Amino acid sequence: MEKNSTLISIQAAQALVLKYSSVTSVIVEMDLCNALDYVLAINVISEIDMPPFRQAAMDGYAFSISSAITYTVVAEIKAGDNANPILKEGEAVRIFTGAPVPTTANAVIMQEKVAIQGHKMTVQMPLVVEMNIRPKGSQIKRGAMALAKGTKIKGAHIGFLASIGITKVSVYAKPSIAIVVTGNELKAAGTPLEYGEIYESNGTMLSAVLQELGYLKTSIITVADDYDQTKTTLKEAIQVHDIVLVTGGVSVGDYDFVGKALKAIGVKEIFYKVKQKPGKPLFFGKMGSVSIFGLPGNPAAALSCFYIYVYPLLKKGEGATNTQLLSIFMPITSDYDVKGDRAQFLKAQIEEDGVQILEGQSSAFAGSFGAANALVFIPEHTPKIKKGERVKTILLPIK
Amino acid sequence: MEKNSTLISIQAAQALVLKYSSVTSVIVEMDLCNALDYVLAINVISEIDMPPFRQAAMDGYAFSISSAITYTVVAEIKAGDNANPILKEGEAVRIFTGAPVPTTANAVIMQEKVAIQGHKMTVQMPLVVEMNIRPKGSQIKRGAMALAKGTKIKGAHIGFLASIGITKVSVYAKPSIAIVVTGNELKAAGTPLEYGEIYESNGTMLSAVLQELGYLKTSIITVADDYDQTKTTLKEAIQVHDIVLVTGGVSVGDYDFVGKALKAIGVKEIFYKVKQKPGKPLFFGKMGSVSIFGLPGNPAAALSCFYIYVYPLLKKGEGATNTQLLSIFMPITSDYDVKGDRAQFLKAQIEEDGVQILEGQSSAFAGSFGAANALVFIPEHTPKIKKGERVKTILLPIK
Repeated sequence: MEKNSTLISIQAAQALVLKYSSVTSVIVEMDLCNALDYVLAINVISEIDMPPFRQAAMDGYAFSISSAITYTVVAEIKAGDNANPILKEGEAVRIFTGAPVPTTANAVIMQEKVAIQGHKMTVQMPLVVEMNIRPKGSQIKRGAMALAKGTKIKGAHIGFLASIGITKVSVYAKPSIAIVVTGNELKAAGTPLEYGEIYESNGTMLSAVLQELGYLKTSIITVADDYDQTKTTLKEAIQVHDIVLVTGGVSVGDYDFVGKALKAIGVKEIFYKVKQKPGKPLFFGKMGSVSIFGLPGNPAAALSCFYIYVYPLLKKGEGATNTQLLSIFMPITSDYDVKGDRAQFLKAQIEEDGVQILEGQSSAFAGSFGAANALVFIPEHTPKIKKGERVKTILLPIK
Repeated sequence: MEKNSTLISIQAAQALVLKYSSVTSVIVEMDLCNALDYVLAINVISEIDMPPFRQAAMDGYAFSISSAITYTVVAEIKAGDNANPILKEGEAVRIFTGAPVPTTANAVIMQEKVAIQGHKMTVQMPLVVEMNIRPKGSQIKRGAMALAKGTKIKGAHIGFLASIGITKVSVYAKPSIAIVVTGNELKAAGTPLEYGEIYESNGTMLSAVLQELGYLKTSIITVADDYDQTKTTLKEAIQVHDIVLVTGGVSVGDYDFVGKALKAIGVKEIFYKVKQKPGKPLFFGKMGSVSIFGLPGNPAAALSCFYIYVYPLLKKGEGATNTQLLSIFMPITSDYDVKGDRAQFLKAQIEEDGVQILEGQSSAFAGSFGAANALVFIPEHTPKIKKGERVKTILLPIK
């Protein structure tokens, strides 16, 4: 990382991250019930019609429509019954939701729309062929694609795949991620601070944020501000992980060894410094297939950079079709004076009728990130935003 | 569940769910790093000032402002140094971001804004008292509240709490949840279907959706359409869980035993049937402190009811301040003809400029729920919505 690297734009930096990342080649077959948050690596094809038979959509009576309005009830079919009685003209069966409709019936009438007297059922509404019958294969046909490669598997997907009898899926492996935390000033929690020290929190935070997104294979590695130690630690971290996130040490101070160490061990700089606030001193590099981010030491800046640059890398790497956080345009709830000229990401809170930019935008302060459920993007050279103007609002993960 | 229960409104049903649910009395102390997704049960008070000392916000030089513009650099302070040199008039120290600023200094100047000649440093910009110094306690003061009871703990919160040295937090216990799946027609995945059978999927789906939200203490219990067995199973489930979700069996068919069984074992009906689509035959009852939901058997209807009614119960029970999913008003991206008169929840996809109502709204079909990232609420008696009209859009959990 040289002092005079040229600042690149956010768009260019995001494009470079995607250009230099690739989908993992490791595909794992796993039980459907464990596949939540993984990305499907092979299309799932349905091996059955769903529903597998013509299914009653109502509790009522099934029969073949004739000119008569009164039918004789000759049998009963419940959900789960393996029964397909042959109905003669004028005959009906009592039937319940989910039960198979006899092949010889072409209508199901709701029980609320008939009059019953003994075994006689009289219809009290106009009839339509195939009414209240879910056709075989109407949700999905045998041989059709149930879920496409690249889909991130959600709870509803698991329900749908279970309904067509799927028990195993092939998904992309998740990356193993090292979080390298640098700085002599950092003390582990649980011990008293000496003058000049602060508690380590970036590693803990990034690990928790990764866990929130479903990435559990993370290790936190701490290293003092020492050139040789930094070099050795980074080299080892790169050898055994897919992604290395370094926090701190990417500024230009004489004691920021990270840049020099990365160069010395052969990491190729893709970009260093982005025209943005916060997170100007962001570094991205590659060594073989391993991606290395140098995130700012300030926690709020590190977290913004995580969502804007690391998140898409993670998504691309695990084969997801969507690599960005969802963003929407929302009106801002009060006037906002923009400080500085650089493009900015501001911590914000979405409300029912608009988005409010939060107090406490300092990069050093992770506290207000907790209250944020969105980041508002302000393009460069925007002096002021008026209440009601629509701004690009990036939704943070919500549960 | 009697046939003639009066339908109540969505608002009334939601209010009853909250009225009849209470915050758990079980409070657990746990390691901060395991507390993700739990709700804080006791305010966290900071035991330190953060930062704990006056902290340099830049790499540069610290000194006491005088009439001179040239200062002699007498020492160096890095982040983590336990050093507080006494500076005389005209003296400066080289200082790095995060390092403690000497008590005798009242300004830090960026290294880019000075000229250096040997040990002499000449300032090249106007000086302001306390510039580039983060005051002690400026993020949070010792004794101040760092995080309020009722906050659901996110990754950013964990980062912030770690930064003030917190290692343990007291949180509300999560409920244990039984999912009781009813229906003779249900077959376990992995075995071939007989005519009339379908694969069990509601239990798998609800368990996955709960897992997505961070609820891991769930058990799936299946029961055939048999009155005595249903009664015994429900009784046992209620005895050992905090929440029981029953799917299917809440309709009025002669073989839906759930209603009768719940009544027989002493579950108090709070409401049964809601004026809504999907999910009309929704049941909510209480037995002691245990909440029992009878969800519709149709998977998409069950899932809608889960987000609208069960989610708030879960949040209230675990002590969260926010009990509802986030909802916003968004313009609809194309005209929509509303079917029927009941208030509706429609599966929808949020895009950058509006919300699109998805195809495939059938209650029986969980598939389109996978593509949805929101539910659009349509009030009752809405015949048509025009493109561009703003509709209430409930955001589903996103990662």
